[in-house]
Amino acid sequence: MRNTHDSQSGSPESPIESAAGARGDGVDNIKDANSPSAGTTTTRIVLASRPHGEPTQDNFRTETANLQDPGEDEALLETLFLSLDPYMRGRMSDAESYADPVEIGDVVVGATVSRVLASGSPEFAEGDLVLGYGGWQTHSLEKTAHLRKLDKQAEVSPSTSLGVLGMPGFTAWAGMNNIGHPKEGETVVVAAATGPVGSMVGQVAKLAGARAVGIAGGPKKVEYLKELGFDAAIDHKAEDFEEQLAAATPDGIDVYYENVGGKVWEAVLPRLNTYARVPVCGLVSGYNSTELPEGPDRSGQLMGTILRKSLTIRGFIQTEYADQMGDFLEEMTPRVADGSVKFREDVVDGLDSAVDAFIGMLNGKNFGKLVVKVAD
Amino acid sequence: MRNTHDSQSGSPESPIESAAGARGDGVDNIKDANSPSAGTTTTRIVLASRPHGEPTQDNFRTETANLQDPGEDEALLETLFLSLDPYMRGRMSDAESYADPVEIGDVVVGATVSRVLASGSPEFAEGDLVLGYGGWQTHSLEKTAHLRKLDKQAEVSPSTSLGVLGMPGFTAWAGMNNIGHPKEGETVVVAAATGPVGSMVGQVAKLAGARAVGIAGGPKKVEYLKELGFDAAIDHKAEDFEEQLAAATPDGIDVYYENVGGKVWEAVLPRLNTYARVPVCGLVSGYNSTELPEGPDRSGQLMGTILRKSLTIRGFIQTEYADQMGDFLEEMTPRVADGSVKFREDVVDGLDSAVDAFIGMLNGKNFGKLVVKVAD
Repeated sequence: MRNTHDSQSGSPESPIESAAGARGDGVDNIKDANSPSAGTTTTRIVLASRPHGEPTQDNFRTETANLQDPGEDEALLETLFLSLDPYMRGRMSDAESYADPVEIGDVVVGATVSRVLASGSPEFAEGDLVLGYGGWQTHSLEKTAHLRKLDKQAEVSPSTSLGVLGMPGFTAWAGMNNIGHPKEGETVVVAAATGPVGSMVGQVAKLAGARAVGIAGGPKKVEYLKELGFDAAIDHKAEDFEEQLAAATPDGIDVYYENVGGKVWEAVLPRLNTYARVPVCGLVSGYNSTELPEGPDRSGQLMGTILRKSLTIRGFIQTEYADQMGDFLEEMTPRVADGSVKFREDVVDGLDSAVDAFIGMLNGKNFGKLVVKVAD
Repeated sequence: MRNTHDSQSGSPESPIESAAGARGDGVDNIKDANSPSAGTTTTRIVLASRPHGEPTQDNFRTETANLQDPGEDEALLETLFLSLDPYMRGRMSDAESYADPVEIGDVVVGATVSRVLASGSPEFAEGDLVLGYGGWQTHSLEKTAHLRKLDKQAEVSPSTSLGVLGMPGFTAWAGMNNIGHPKEGETVVVAAATGPVGSMVGQVAKLAGARAVGIAGGPKKVEYLKELGFDAAIDHKAEDFEEQLAAATPDGIDVYYENVGGKVWEAVLPRLNTYARVPVCGLVSGYNSTELPEGPDRSGQLMGTILRKSLTIRGFIQTEYADQMGDFLEEMTPRVADGSVKFREDVVDGLDSAVDAFIGMLNGKNFGKLVVKVAD
């Protein structure tokens, strides 16, 4: 079962209310054990083996475990929403990266919106909604230092703190403000533009007075880009994708917010203007790659283009700008609340849907920010 | 005939004094015509055909032409020194670039230090030394708006305004100050490190309190790097170049000033630290390339490294920072004058040596800033 929540349509399908009782069989067994004082059982999805290329169900295993009652500065949490994001694919590999990989047998990582069941800290009370990093499981025991109590975000809807007002939205905002620097009249291009990062990139571009060009896969998503306010929307699945991109960027491209890589990047590169900026926050098209593509080797050509066009290519992880999170929320929370900044959520029901939803996301099958509704 | 001028050795081989009367046969014919009032003959090297790969003598042709007397806001100049720089190779191709190519039949471009023979502007008088852009010729007629009168630089020696205190030195300084941002204790790596850009990069790094690692070709150049103050010097021709680079950068690399590309870049990339900065001002190793190297295609891998390490890769041309030239000269002229910033010049005699010297430079045969002494 899958629901979408579109901030602008006033959809009655609220992700919070529409899926009551829809939890899958895989987690039914925890309901009886759900009393904190008796110890709590969590149902969790662990990494069973490292994916080679595209992840499969076999790379994951569902198991149960018992959680202790919270000690000092700990809280026992019930997961309401689990965020599914492309970066998780990287954490499933043991290649060198900016973060340690998930170990075999460990719970898969992920941001969560949870309800406090029991707290060992005066700062958190039973019933509080918190943003944490509980991972792919129904319950978690977390250090309260890693939790943030949801206040304003909760007024919009708690799951927004995983998307438009969470890490993805902030990744877009921080990359644009610190690296992209869109200026009035410039052209900004972003792919995966209906996703939580891309849609915020486009809206930040528009707020700066720039022309926003969005790329997405398939006519439904392309249509939605216009609703989001993009000036032009292009289907990367179209045969004449390159021609469409050229037509949509008659003055070239000043900012390309890179989150996909691959053929979109190849089409964008020749259209970049002198002094163009390329914040690089993801390369999802290559996350399942197992070997280098065939030659010729274009890496030297890429460096030559960087030189000739005085390009700025800058990789980043949003944590680099963590001290700007307050500014982001202050600017964006009211805009999301009043509907002037739009977002779309793709809500799947039940933790047992997480693996399929995650695999689909890596192939662009989600439409909007993908979250798993784990409990009501 | 070839002389070197080493700022720190107090060499008696001043490039100004040591080569008197050494002008080659190719320009002898102008001596009789060298009276500005009767019109002036210039001997000039023009582009006869576009090089395919490495330039050869056949791509150039020497001819003479008559220059008019200067009109208003023009000056007739006698070239004393002609600068030879790698960027000129790019101007000989008609591929898209940041500057228009030299047309077939046109004088090859280049910065020059010249003496004013006749002036149509009250700002310039006969006998003044000026920095201009006269190109590969013995005389030129230039708009005075494009000239800069040499004052302080001339006290060091006029040719320094083509090297350590000219475009190459400024390219190094501007790239480091605007992009590289070397910090105390960080590690800076530069190749072609005995050249006018690389040697300034190393010295700017040392002034910032960073560790400077220089790469050059052959033991003589490597030895000289230590005299320049580099903390470590590596021979890129050594069999164990990569191991030497690893040993010289035990804490990784924070700034790699890119002016060569190719195998040095391949060895540097895996050693870059998180948040490393890579100002890209040249890729001389590839300037003679005629086709893309064999695969696999590593351009996606390069983007992946930029992402994982939060790298900044930034191409630039020094003209972007032209408004900082005054600051550069103010900071560096006294340091060059007192010997605390060192430089080395490789002076070839006579315009007819220019083509061979230029071809050699693209193969790393120069040792220090390459200038042609065209006249006394």
